[in-house]
Amino acid sequence: MPQLSERGKIMPASPIRKLVPYAEDAKKRGIKVYHLNIGQPDIKTPEVAFEALKNFNVKTAEYSHSAGNESYRKGLAEYYKSVDIDLSYEDIMVTTGGSEAIIFAFMATMNPGDEVIIPEPFYTNYNGFAVEAGVKIVPVTSYIEDGFALPPISDFEKLITSKTKAVLVCNPNNPTGYLYSKEELMQVRELVLKHNLYLFADEVYREFCYDGNEHYSVMQMKGLEKNAVLFDSVSKRYSECGVRIGALISRNKDLMASALKYGQARLSPPLFGQIAAEASLKVGSEYFDEVYNEYIERRNYVINALNKIDGVVAPMPKGSFYAVISLPIEDAEDFCVWLLKDFDYNGETVMLAPAQGFYSTPDAGKTQVRLAYVLKVEDLKHSVKILEEALKVYKK
Amino acid sequence: MPQLSERGKIMPASPIRKLVPYAEDAKKRGIKVYHLNIGQPDIKTPEVAFEALKNFNVKTAEYSHSAGNESYRKGLAEYYKSVDIDLSYEDIMVTTGGSEAIIFAFMATMNPGDEVIIPEPFYTNYNGFAVEAGVKIVPVTSYIEDGFALPPISDFEKLITSKTKAVLVCNPNNPTGYLYSKEELMQVRELVLKHNLYLFADEVYREFCYDGNEHYSVMQMKGLEKNAVLFDSVSKRYSECGVRIGALISRNKDLMASALKYGQARLSPPLFGQIAAEASLKVGSEYFDEVYNEYIERRNYVINALNKIDGVVAPMPKGSFYAVISLPIEDAEDFCVWLLKDFDYNGETVMLAPAQGFYSTPDAGKTQVRLAYVLKVEDLKHSVKILEEALKVYKK
Repeated sequence: MPQLSERGKIMPASPIRKLVPYAEDAKKRGIKVYHLNIGQPDIKTPEVAFEALKNFNVKTAEYSHSAGNESYRKGLAEYYKSVDIDLSYEDIMVTTGGSEAIIFAFMATMNPGDEVIIPEPFYTNYNGFAVEAGVKIVPVTSYIEDGFALPPISDFEKLITSKTKAVLVCNPNNPTGYLYSKEELMQVRELVLKHNLYLFADEVYREFCYDGNEHYSVMQMKGLEKNAVLFDSVSKRYSECGVRIGALISRNKDLMASALKYGQARLSPPLFGQIAAEASLKVGSEYFDEVYNEYIERRNYVINALNKIDGVVAPMPKGSFYAVISLPIEDAEDFCVWLLKDFDYNGETVMLAPAQGFYSTPDAGKTQVRLAYVLKVEDLKHSVKILEEALKVYKK
Repeated sequence: MPQLSERGKIMPASPIRKLVPYAEDAKKRGIKVYHLNIGQPDIKTPEVAFEALKNFNVKTAEYSHSAGNESYRKGLAEYYKSVDIDLSYEDIMVTTGGSEAIIFAFMATMNPGDEVIIPEPFYTNYNGFAVEAGVKIVPVTSYIEDGFALPPISDFEKLITSKTKAVLVCNPNNPTGYLYSKEELMQVRELVLKHNLYLFADEVYREFCYDGNEHYSVMQMKGLEKNAVLFDSVSKRYSECGVRIGALISRNKDLMASALKYGQARLSPPLFGQIAAEASLKVGSEYFDEVYNEYIERRNYVINALNKIDGVVAPMPKGSFYAVISLPIEDAEDFCVWLLKDFDYNGETVMLAPAQGFYSTPDAGKTQVRLAYVLKVEDLKHSVKILEEALKVYKK
């Protein structure tokens, strides 16, 4: 019988995957499970997106251009202008979700065995993309004590080898919710220029910045034309996760030409998704205001309530809709399984993501969980109460 | 300045890409260009696909399951049953186009440096997927004199090394239009069992078989449960190229489990595409009959007319909507450029794809072009006439 490849074997499964059967089983037992483990917002997709599809009138659902519809790319350039990022539509390639932008960038810039430095904890799927591209993620640890701020540049410097090709920053951060400041990013800028590296920035949570903090993009930095590469997506901006439309953006023309060849191999990004995403560009600030108000209320409630629980440490996130918090336990994975398998409070429980899956340093983040505050405040209230009660009885 | 990767550099561009500027220039000069170079059919997408999108009523465009919507997968299993292929929906993973199915299969089964044997000429994008996966395509040449039949199995045997992991067959074939018989496929079955190889089959043109010939699928073969992997797509079946919905299919559970991990990294296939594709399953035989009648008329016209031109050799294809034909010239690429750059007949010309891009053996297919008979018969008549007149004056 033919064997799987090594990468077919080592490809990581979703870190919450092993919890799923426990959640399903709990539901079968009639227990209500609050899902704080996933990044699927309950926010409504803008009505204009669905309207555009209803009004889309063609006879044949043809391939679009491999780089995406020109009208959408031009619309995207306008959107970026509105957030103070000056781009030509030719700097923008439409991709199948942000995922594909990451894969194409990894492939176009790194050889197998090359290294990319990423602050940890980091979005777990970067591990999968690294396996696909045969590259190595070198983690530089950020700490909950610092609210997951950028690690000192000297920590990055220590990790640089002849194989280092890039630094990847997710800003605002998934999973920590940390928003990197302009000052922090300027330090990364110096680093990549000094060592001749690419700077990949995953900015899919750009619209989710709180407390008056402004997002600063790698595309706003001078002198990084050849280095800076932006990954973007409509998934979170317009609550269009299923639409699978992202973007790969760079002013480095060689890089974009190479990425386009990857795009040509897969012919085109999804047609219907592009129609929905282009229509969503018309969404006004009232949509974002409403979303902002919803999230800020959720964040303020959940983080403040969590910090009131004895032994819980929950830094206040300035962006995205995630938080990594520390619990007064020894092994978060064991605790998360126990929550689903052995605990309920008035017939309800919560599902959380053990944070260890977001670290690549062994044993890092063992007492931490990631939560996504993508539920209504009322549900968050139940969730926090459940967690509080659970911690009272877990292993007591 | 940071450098591109080796694979970023060697990634092949679309082989017709270098002709595109010449076509655009011809159009600017007011010349009408008949595009026989591309596989974008002019056939209408079933109305039910667009209707389903109009009636799709959700508030949030959420991620679907990484393996695709269960209802669609179950519908697909029913579709396969209707074409005599017995599958469980769990053998089916929905992918972003057939392209992604190929990538996932390559990744899950082959290590970098491993080899896959493919009869040439073959679909050029296999080259791109091979570069992405770091695997090597080993071509086994099929010949126009044999109508591009399966090369003798002894030719395959000669190419097998310790690195050989798979054989890939595209059936019906793009670019040749050849339809492999059950007898030919049974020989391939013996080969893969003898050498413990995977058998990848790209069957996206399954519905396009002519002259009463039936399609025989690798999934219909006994004893290949661990070996056979099917790539499929709705692109051609329902003229839904832009929808980007394909499928990766195998009864090998380890392979499917590995592929699912790749699927989880990219979260989900396109939501709207799945809605359209699932609705298209309801399309009745009258849709396919109409499409069939259209293509058979086109094929019969174009192949018969081409064979009447002095020095042209055009085997009658039994499947798909492509043909590779030989012209009485020395260098098809030079000829194709000349057609666009220096020739017109009554203000019209044709764009063809030089077949060399479909071969990986150097200089193979140098006198050949691929054409897609995706235009109406009336346009094909003009196209053949143009080609006939062009051959009269080219390099004379």
